[in-house]
Amino acid sequence: MPAEGEMHAPANELPIIAADVLARLRAQSPRVHCITNSVAQTLTANTLLAVGAVPSMTIAPEEIGGFVKRAGALLVNLGTFDAGRRAASAIAIEAANELNLPWVLDPVFVDRSEPRAIYAKQLAVLAPKAMRLNHAEFSALSGVAPEGGALAGYSREHGIVVGLTGATDLVADGERLVAIANGHPLMPKVTALGCAASALVAACLAVERDAWCASAAALLIMGVAGELAAKRARGPGSFAVEILDALYALDRDMLVAHAKVS
Amino acid sequence: MPAEGEMHAPANELPIIAADVLARLRAQSPRVHCITNSVAQTLTANTLLAVGAVPSMTIAPEEIGGFVKRAGALLVNLGTFDAGRRAASAIAIEAANELNLPWVLDPVFVDRSEPRAIYAKQLAVLAPKAMRLNHAEFSALSGVAPEGGALAGYSREHGIVVGLTGATDLVADGERLVAIANGHPLMPKVTALGCAASALVAACLAVERDAWCASAAALLIMGVAGELAAKRARGPGSFAVEILDALYALDRDMLVAHAKVS
Amino acid sequence: MPAEGEMHAPANELPIIAADVLARLRAQSPRVHCITNSVAQTLTANTLLAVGAVPSMTIAPEEIGGFVKRAGALLVNLGTFDAGRRAASAIAIEAANELNLPWVLDPVFVDRSEPRAIYAKQLAVLAPKAMRLNHAEFSALSGVAPEGGALAGYSREHGIVVGLTGATDLVADGERLVAIANGHPLMPKVTALGCAASALVAACLAVERDAWCASAAALLIMGVAGELAAKRARGPGSFAVEILDALYALDRDMLVAHAKVS
Repeated sequence: MPAEGEMHAPANELPIIAADVLARLRAQSPRVHCITNSVAQTLTANTLLAVGAVPSMTIAPEEIGGFVKRAGALLVNLGTFDAGRRAASAIAIEAANELNLPWVLDPVFVDRSEPRAIYAKQLAVLAPKAMRLNHAEFSALSGVAPEGGALAGYSREHGIVVGLTGATDLVADGERLVAIANGHPLMPKVTALGCAASALVAACLAVERDAWCASAAALLIMGVAGELAAKRARGPGSFAVEILDALYALDRDMLVAHAKVS
Repeated sequence: MPAEGEMHAPANELPIIAADVLARLRAQSPRVHCITNSVAQTLTANTLLAVGAVPSMTIAPEEIGGFVKRAGALLVNLGTFDAGRRAASAIAIEAANELNLPWVLDPVFVDRSEPRAIYAKQLAVLAPKAMRLNHAEFSALSGVAPEGGALAGYSREHGIVVGLTGATDLVADGERLVAIANGHPLMPKVTALGCAASALVAACLAVERDAWCASAAALLIMGVAGELAAKRARGPGSFAVEILDALYALDRDMLVAHAKVS
Repeated sequence: MPAEGEMHAPANELPIIAADVLARLRAQSPRVHCITNSVAQTLTANTLLAVGAVPSMTIAPEEIGGFVKRAGALLVNLGTFDAGRRAASAIAIEAANELNLPWVLDPVFVDRSEPRAIYAKQLAVLAPKAMRLNHAEFSALSGVAPEGGALAGYSREHGIVVGLTGATDLVADGERLVAIANGHPLMPKVTALGCAASALVAACLAVERDAWCASAAALLIMGVAGELAAKRARGPGSFAVEILDALYALDRDMLVAHAKVS
């Protein structure tokens, strides 16, 4: 359902868009401030470094405002959320919105915790540019099943680009929808790869202000890297290593050759 | 010293028991809620995923009760313990015990901290099903040397299965004792592999309610995976990768072929 | 600018000094207590284990004093600093200084946070034996550009050995200066390798009380391991694995053959 006019970005242009975004990441090295769960921090930092971005991760209240204001984008991931992360998020989101800095919401496990789902809904009205989540999380947040029309509806209502990951990833704003059939079954066997993908969405937003293009580029980059990694991996341990190497080596030709978008 | 009757489980049946437990992990994908130290979180999560289980790790007081009540088992690991983890453990253990959900105690470094040893003793009377610890930790907790009879005595007195890891692992309840001579000298060169083994004990308890069988199965699975990993590893860095691949690939034939139990 | 007399340690002796320090690490297995950021903890622990040292990382106020007093050295790394780490550092530094236990300051990202820079300056007068930092951090801390004379001046004024890492590492006290041209461009692509290097400085201080020798040995060990790792790595994911294997395998001959010191 691509719309016409400026926002038009048909699926077949996505590999080129993603390659351009990746080139900008490497050229500009944006810093992404990540409020993320303690399980995900190392892989998230290494994912950002592998594509040319720079991570920072403090949640200290006296520091985080300054860190965010000089960053290129912000990630708020709700895994292992606690009072410290909650206080940090309030300061960080206010700082980001003050400067119109893009920020991304990753509502980890909202399907497993009612208080967290309520909190995520409160954050969703604070104007994140994009959201990355899985099927169960989308259902818990929106109350509806995660298919294309529901994503577009949610996105239109909230003004947030929705990046839904699963066997096939879907990226929707109110007008555009793309399906990305890259990735590999080993990906959910590595903890925090979804969290790292959300950080990559934030990094892409730092260099590409069309949030649909940034989100779709990030998920395509991650999906293609995952496929390339799977060719060398023998299990989830080596897969986690190989995907960082693949992200680091990824180029325009690989993106074009391997992208499965529709 | 195997006892007679229902509890009888001679060492030579252990590989088959472990293979059955592993098959159930993969079929049922139990979620294991882990209160664990910040150094161990990523490896612990990846270890659980590699065998088919699902990790969750929040320690936020408003969430952890709900997370535990819908989990299959709970791990309480005392590494990097602080006020937040202490408060979380109180809520989590009460939630687990309310539902008779099995939980595992890992009294990390109690030999190095008197306050932690005191705290571990307070937890040991709250009915954990099993405990995984090393020689120095057992001595600090029990006041006696870690040999088979002492393990059985401690286990009988406290009603906790004791899984003692070292060059040879010992698993004891009041009646049964098995020695597992698998594993590899590189294992203690990877941080938090012992912590990950404790999480694996919890995962096995989620699908096998005989705590001695679950504990022995977990340590045999880890030990055989460690031996297989060592065949491919060139040092502790590659060993940490290979053991996740080995856990993921492990099957009944490998367990039977490599088990060294007596 | 090597001085004469006891403190004399020309660059060409450094590979042998480093080999001796490494041999002592493996023989004595000193424990290094690390107050370090949550992103760096796992790699830091694994780096210490790979060279034969033992990590501990609690920051709980009731425990950390005891942990530090029985350790061989202390690291205070300011990444993801928060109130808990600040309180822990106060206790830990006092405990270390009481016993004249060497401690190392790693002022992570002081160039990005004014409050953190102020705090780092307060710690710098509490007699750390050594400091490991990058160019931007040195400039933020000292107010001057990071060249050899400035390092010597800062070191003389504060009584702290300065280990400056970058394309070429410099290690200075008030009288001695060495340049280490080992290392590899993939090193800054792995999160927290600099933090791990600071922990290695602390480990070396536990077995070598000449802080300049300990710091230079640590950075040479890390640099040579990085070069050896790069020969096998295909990107930052495999590099992070290979450097642990290289640290584990490193010996006198490799240090002598690969050292580029002047």
